[in-house]
Amino acid sequence: MSSRKGHLRLGAFLYPTGHHIAAWRHPDSRVDAGRNFRHYVQLAQAAEAAKFDLIFLADGAGTRGDNVDFLSRTAHSYVAQFEPLTLLSALAAVTERIGLVGTASTTFNEPYHIARKFASLDHISGGRAGWNLVTSSSAHEAKNFNFDEHLAHARRYERAVEFAEVVEGLWDSWDDEAFVRDKASGRYFDPSKRHVLDHRGEFFNVRGPLNVERSPQGRPVVVQAGSSEAGKALAARTAEVIFTAQQTLDDAVAFYADVKGRMAAYGREPDDLKIMPGVMPIVGATESEAREKFDALQALIDPAVGLALVQTVTGGFDLSGYPLDGPIPELPETNASKSRQLLALELARRENLTIRELYLRIAGARGHWQLVGTPEQIVDALEARFVNHGADGYNVMPALLPNSLDDFIRLVLPELRRRGLFRSEYEGRTLRENLGLKQPVSRYALESVTSS
Amino acid sequence: MSSRKGHLRLGAFLYPTGHHIAAWRHPDSRVDAGRNFRHYVQLAQAAEAAKFDLIFLADGAGTRGDNVDFLSRTAHSYVAQFEPLTLLSALAAVTERIGLVGTASTTFNEPYHIARKFASLDHISGGRAGWNLVTSSSAHEAKNFNFDEHLAHARRYERAVEFAEVVEGLWDSWDDEAFVRDKASGRYFDPSKRHVLDHRGEFFNVRGPLNVERSPQGRPVVVQAGSSEAGKALAARTAEVIFTAQQTLDDAVAFYADVKGRMAAYGREPDDLKIMPGVMPIVGATESEAREKFDALQALIDPAVGLALVQTVTGGFDLSGYPLDGPIPELPETNASKSRQLLALELARRENLTIRELYLRIAGARGHWQLVGTPEQIVDALEARFVNHGADGYNVMPALLPNSLDDFIRLVLPELRRRGLFRSEYEGRTLRENLGLKQPVSRYALESVTSS
Repeated sequence: MSSRKGHLRLGAFLYPTGHHIAAWRHPDSRVDAGRNFRHYVQLAQAAEAAKFDLIFLADGAGTRGDNVDFLSRTAHSYVAQFEPLTLLSALAAVTERIGLVGTASTTFNEPYHIARKFASLDHISGGRAGWNLVTSSSAHEAKNFNFDEHLAHARRYERAVEFAEVVEGLWDSWDDEAFVRDKASGRYFDPSKRHVLDHRGEFFNVRGPLNVERSPQGRPVVVQAGSSEAGKALAARTAEVIFTAQQTLDDAVAFYADVKGRMAAYGREPDDLKIMPGVMPIVGATESEAREKFDALQALIDPAVGLALVQTVTGGFDLSGYPLDGPIPELPETNASKSRQLLALELARRENLTIRELYLRIAGARGHWQLVGTPEQIVDALEARFVNHGADGYNVMPALLPNSLDDFIRLVLPELRRRGLFRSEYEGRTLRENLGLKQPVSRYALESVTSS
Repeated sequence: MSSRKGHLRLGAFLYPTGHHIAAWRHPDSRVDAGRNFRHYVQLAQAAEAAKFDLIFLADGAGTRGDNVDFLSRTAHSYVAQFEPLTLLSALAAVTERIGLVGTASTTFNEPYHIARKFASLDHISGGRAGWNLVTSSSAHEAKNFNFDEHLAHARRYERAVEFAEVVEGLWDSWDDEAFVRDKASGRYFDPSKRHVLDHRGEFFNVRGPLNVERSPQGRPVVVQAGSSEAGKALAARTAEVIFTAQQTLDDAVAFYADVKGRMAAYGREPDDLKIMPGVMPIVGATESEAREKFDALQALIDPAVGLALVQTVTGGFDLSGYPLDGPIPELPETNASKSRQLLALELARRENLTIRELYLRIAGARGHWQLVGTPEQIVDALEARFVNHGADGYNVMPALLPNSLDDFIRLVLPELRRRGLFRSEYEGRTLRENLGLKQPVSRYALESVTSS
């Protein structure tokens, strides 16, 4: 039995054919996964039957790369797949209890659209929506939205902070009991329970109110992923779940203490935020069986793909002149996603990895934590981070779908449950209830308490 | 048997409690319809069982009105309801054959997002998506998107033309067989079948390609509603379905000939576009039963609501100083939706209506065509427009939901079928096939034909 109270939370991070970069080439992959709706229905229903808190979808509003021949060999499903909000909405209709968390960028969207779509999803799903708030660092996305280059890192975060303020303000447009809909008198809503935001800021002027009723969770759950200084500050202020990428227990514990320690400054309790590192578990009944599964995927990585992957996590720095079996060169400071870049470089330096060794190390989880072993070994590692306050749960990144999700459910969950680390039934009806997050109080209700 | 070949097409235009402005006050209304997902599931499944071509959802990205007390009595469900793309995506998962058409504005969106979401919906639904392309004339919407006032009518249409060009270009990003996904060789797509749009225009710079595979319909079906000069020009160039609002047979025939006559200039055949006027049928087994149903709804209209409604269709002109039982005053030229305004005024002048008489006339269908009568009377009117080339089908606007949709299915469809005017089974798998629209050929395929 765990020495920390409560149990950990689990997300199923669904990536079309799986998170391993070569998953689509595996004989068992559903190679058309990115546009195979039945595939996602099966995955979501399996995760729900296993009592996962949520499914999680990443996003990018563009394909990557200009060298089309290279791209056609290195691309996997991200080049063409479902858009997350349409997919999650469709999955809402065929699931009942699992949370539905989708990524939407603050860089190339308008806050009114985002507030509205996630509030609508929260109604459709009966209180299961979550918004993964990200900023977009890719020039390939920027060029689809009237920009020639991406926004600088600092400006993206300033915009994201204001964007989140507007979205949360719009979600408070209507009090819980605003819609009286009295057929006899003809009064549709109570005017005193409607609030006009009238936001005027540096990036946005948004009047409101939102044209969606206050949603079952009060507000959809807000998720974030950034681990940079600006990302941590934004998360401490806004996020209710963080999806992180620390490689070691020490780093995870330090990150956890750092972010939770910042929250008091914004009037928040540590428990108002759940830290859920990404983890790619490859599990076998024996250690050698797990290793064989992993090696089978690693063997499918084309060296050109591996090199491209290292370039992605190092901010696009051109490594083509460097020998695959030599060290990673010194890299210039770039504008790319700094935390991911630093994590990869720290890993390479810590272990003196060559370019090839680094790509083999990060190919599966793309910079996230990977675990290869028996159920006991994997649960030992998950438990250690949990009891040492390095994690409140995990966002599970199946290497190959559906196999790795099935393996996790069949082999790892029973061991987690045996140790009291995971639920056997949902505690609540909403994502917020299952995550153990409070129902948020409207800013206008807070005002009236303060002034009374 | 009809003297015109083929049968007519039917849309079910779902409006939360129904299209009649007082529908929500009716004892049979589901007063929480705007956030009642089961309500929409039942309606969509009923329309599908009855073989409707499509369901249709309107949209606006804001609530209307600043006088909150007045609004709370005059508003109906539009102030707070589901967002169309999330709702249609959810309905895609619980239907199999019916088309899913949603409204999205070109005024406050980015073409990459719209192209992507509708392509994603087309994949999720197996080829049933349609985009109702509109421009937004409301200052209340503009103020939610960083503007103080709405865009002028001409600028909105210039933006809409370019927006549609970009969206259609992005939908051609990948040829039909672009994704080879060859596990053995590691080739994910065929580079020669990927196209970079690289659009540079007055309103938009969009590089592409779209990160969604070419969809089952080639492109989602494009629907439009505008009846102004600019609207007709845009429709002749771009639309595959038009949703119109002509009140009389003569007007409908003239509009039909006008729009279809403009298409040759864009290299299009008249059959490439289906004209489907909106119609609000109130049907009873006898004429007096139909009239009683209608009167029961009319009696629920508060005079203040009626006045507000007339102001909406007359472009917001303040009528509060004018007697309800006096004539409509001369109105200034405004920037509002010109076609709707003109239609309402023509109706009032043609029949010498007072303000009260006008609101009672337009309350149900908000300026659209309304029919009150027996199944035979209603089908006579629908058949007359169809055989005289005033319509290719109709967008049915149920006055009260679910009652009026049930009545139409139970009473009107059998008479339409008896006369050979409507199908008993779907002809195709996709919306495009059922509407009798050609599968579009990619611009790049056309280029290679031309150059060979």
